[in-house]
Amino acid sequence: MIGTVRTPPGLRVEVDRELQTLFSRSATVVEAYGSEFARLWDLASRHIRGGKLLRPLLLLETYDALRCSEGPDPLRTEAVRIAAAVEALHYAFLLHDDVIDGDLFRRGRRNLVGELMDVSPVQDWSGGTRHWAQTGGILAGDLLLSCAHQLFARANVPAERRARLLDLLEHTVFETTAGEFADVGLSDGVIGSDLSTVLAMTGRKTATYSFELPLRAAVILAGGSAGLERRLRKAGWHLGVAYQLQDDLLSTFGDADIHGKDAYSDLREGKQTAIICFARMCREWPRIEAELGDRDLSIAAARRIRDRLRECGAEDFVQGLIRDQTTAVTDILTQSGPETIPAEVRGILLTLHAHLDKRQS
Amino acid sequence: MIGTVRTPPGLRVEVDRELQTLFSRSATVVEAYGSEFARLWDLASRHIRGGKLLRPLLLLETYDALRCSEGPDPLRTEAVRIAAAVEALHYAFLLHDDVIDGDLFRRGRRNLVGELMDVSPVQDWSGGTRHWAQTGGILAGDLLLSCAHQLFARANVPAERRARLLDLLEHTVFETTAGEFADVGLSDGVIGSDLSTVLAMTGRKTATYSFELPLRAAVILAGGSAGLERRLRKAGWHLGVAYQLQDDLLSTFGDADIHGKDAYSDLREGKQTAIICFARMCREWPRIEAELGDRDLSIAAARRIRDRLRECGAEDFVQGLIRDQTTAVTDILTQSGPETIPAEVRGILLTLHAHLDKRQS
Repeated sequence: MIGTVRTPPGLRVEVDRELQTLFSRSATVVEAYGSEFARLWDLASRHIRGGKLLRPLLLLETYDALRCSEGPDPLRTEAVRIAAAVEALHYAFLLHDDVIDGDLFRRGRRNLVGELMDVSPVQDWSGGTRHWAQTGGILAGDLLLSCAHQLFARANVPAERRARLLDLLEHTVFETTAGEFADVGLSDGVIGSDLSTVLAMTGRKTATYSFELPLRAAVILAGGSAGLERRLRKAGWHLGVAYQLQDDLLSTFGDADIHGKDAYSDLREGKQTAIICFARMCREWPRIEAELGDRDLSIAAARRIRDRLRECGAEDFVQGLIRDQTTAVTDILTQSGPETIPAEVRGILLTLHAHLDKRQS
Repeated sequence: MIGTVRTPPGLRVEVDRELQTLFSRSATVVEAYGSEFARLWDLASRHIRGGKLLRPLLLLETYDALRCSEGPDPLRTEAVRIAAAVEALHYAFLLHDDVIDGDLFRRGRRNLVGELMDVSPVQDWSGGTRHWAQTGGILAGDLLLSCAHQLFARANVPAERRARLLDLLEHTVFETTAGEFADVGLSDGVIGSDLSTVLAMTGRKTATYSFELPLRAAVILAGGSAGLERRLRKAGWHLGVAYQLQDDLLSTFGDADIHGKDAYSDLREGKQTAIICFARMCREWPRIEAELGDRDLSIAAARRIRDRLRECGAEDFVQGLIRDQTTAVTDILTQSGPETIPAEVRGILLTLHAHLDKRQS
């Protein structure tokens, strides 16, 4: 959901190497459990390392910015490890999200569940391989969730910082699961849809772990104050909501060839986004509602809904919401006071901020 | 899967109080995320506390036995906390297992997923509440898995013991997910079924976390040696496999009114148990195979399969396998040498051993 950030290429190598270590450390263990389980672990390793690694990179960039003026840093290794843990947590959430949504693709390629379906059953039972593949998605998610916690638990940092990191992880897991539960409840018609519920869900489901978590973890690792952590938390929340709202716009109004997701999958799943919240108040709503959430929605029908959503002003409305969020970010970044955000960190956030406007994927 | 163990009633109160603390500590947090999420947390709390708590009780009993002769014990509180963590881990696995199996009942009562289905949708979409309830099962499992790790990570014990506890937790999570993956792969016809695969799966899926984990955690918390830990690990494995094999026998040959599970659910799910492995070699197999794994299997048809399995000698065969396991336990318990198992701990294991014969649920 986050676009590409300009990051020193060395950082990506560091994170990738740490992830590689994480997976290869258990490669012998998993092989003892049979070829299927070893394959599951290998698939998880390849998919996680094929990602953009934006969350761990945001963490490391911020950490380095906070520590910039000093000499040798014994905690740098721990920061790389926690960065890898943040990616493991992200991937655990993605895996369970894909199982929940029944998705077999991500960014135009088969996801882990999709790849697991590619087996030759020894017995003929239709539906068996799909069920088995989804089971693999749940269990790989459990393994990665466990790995993320193990890395946080073993962080070789002063005890007080480790306790703060564990508190942050706990908060993140509660917040993200609450956001995911609300998202599904909204789509499944179990929770009533209104704008404030949808915006809160949007922030909890993605902003918390994608922006707040890396920023706050960097502050804690660098020994920053609770005040600075609070400020970056707020900035991260607003940035994260802005990115997610823009993601929603891209999914419905963007070019699928560029953003790489299933074209119009949000419309097909009946996702309750801010776009849909606005559309409910419009004259066109009954005609939109009639087709929304149809799993077999044709591209032509989806384009019809898209045009109606645009005509009723839903796209402009959500653009406005994004501007509200980015204004809030700018306000936080320019506030002075005892907890002023250091210039280097401000630079990172401004890059993310500026990237929002150019984003197409 | 474990029967009732004779345990001092005070221990149960301690574990229950710790679990209550665990859940009430986050009650305010979850309420902020809306009534649905608060309900999910409350359901998890009620279901976990309604369980038999056999794993945490085994841990505490063993810990107390190892520490019996000494005075005030500052680590006792930590042992209770790790005992609660073991139950949280168990419940996380159960939740994901129920989602994977599509179960809505456990021990004759609705499970968490079953209870979640009891909502009034605000929108009319058939299938929505079931999907939402299963999502709740996945997410509640994630929360509990996270809680278990948090409790291990924050154990206020000497650093070396905390590292051993974290290693044990890591091993347990890998082993249990590998066992679950194999179990589903066997049922779904993706993994070929033979006795050694089935027995390894049986041990990994349940013996490791139900017996090895509590016993080994008790040794580590009490500062016991690696040698004693290895011995209890072996004893726990054999006891766990014996209990699971007996569970399989009860599910097929036992009285559902007494064991409380869905009658013949193993036959309906086509579970690849040791019973079925043996039956494959029998003349009756084609007639058994024809109906095995039929989700709509009638009670009459299930009884027919049961009778055929009994006639072909599968019940006797598995009884023999159980005897092999219990003999192995006895051998370990009576071995002398530098790592002799203390008499009090031996007593606990012998009670579990003796209980196997009388078990009907």
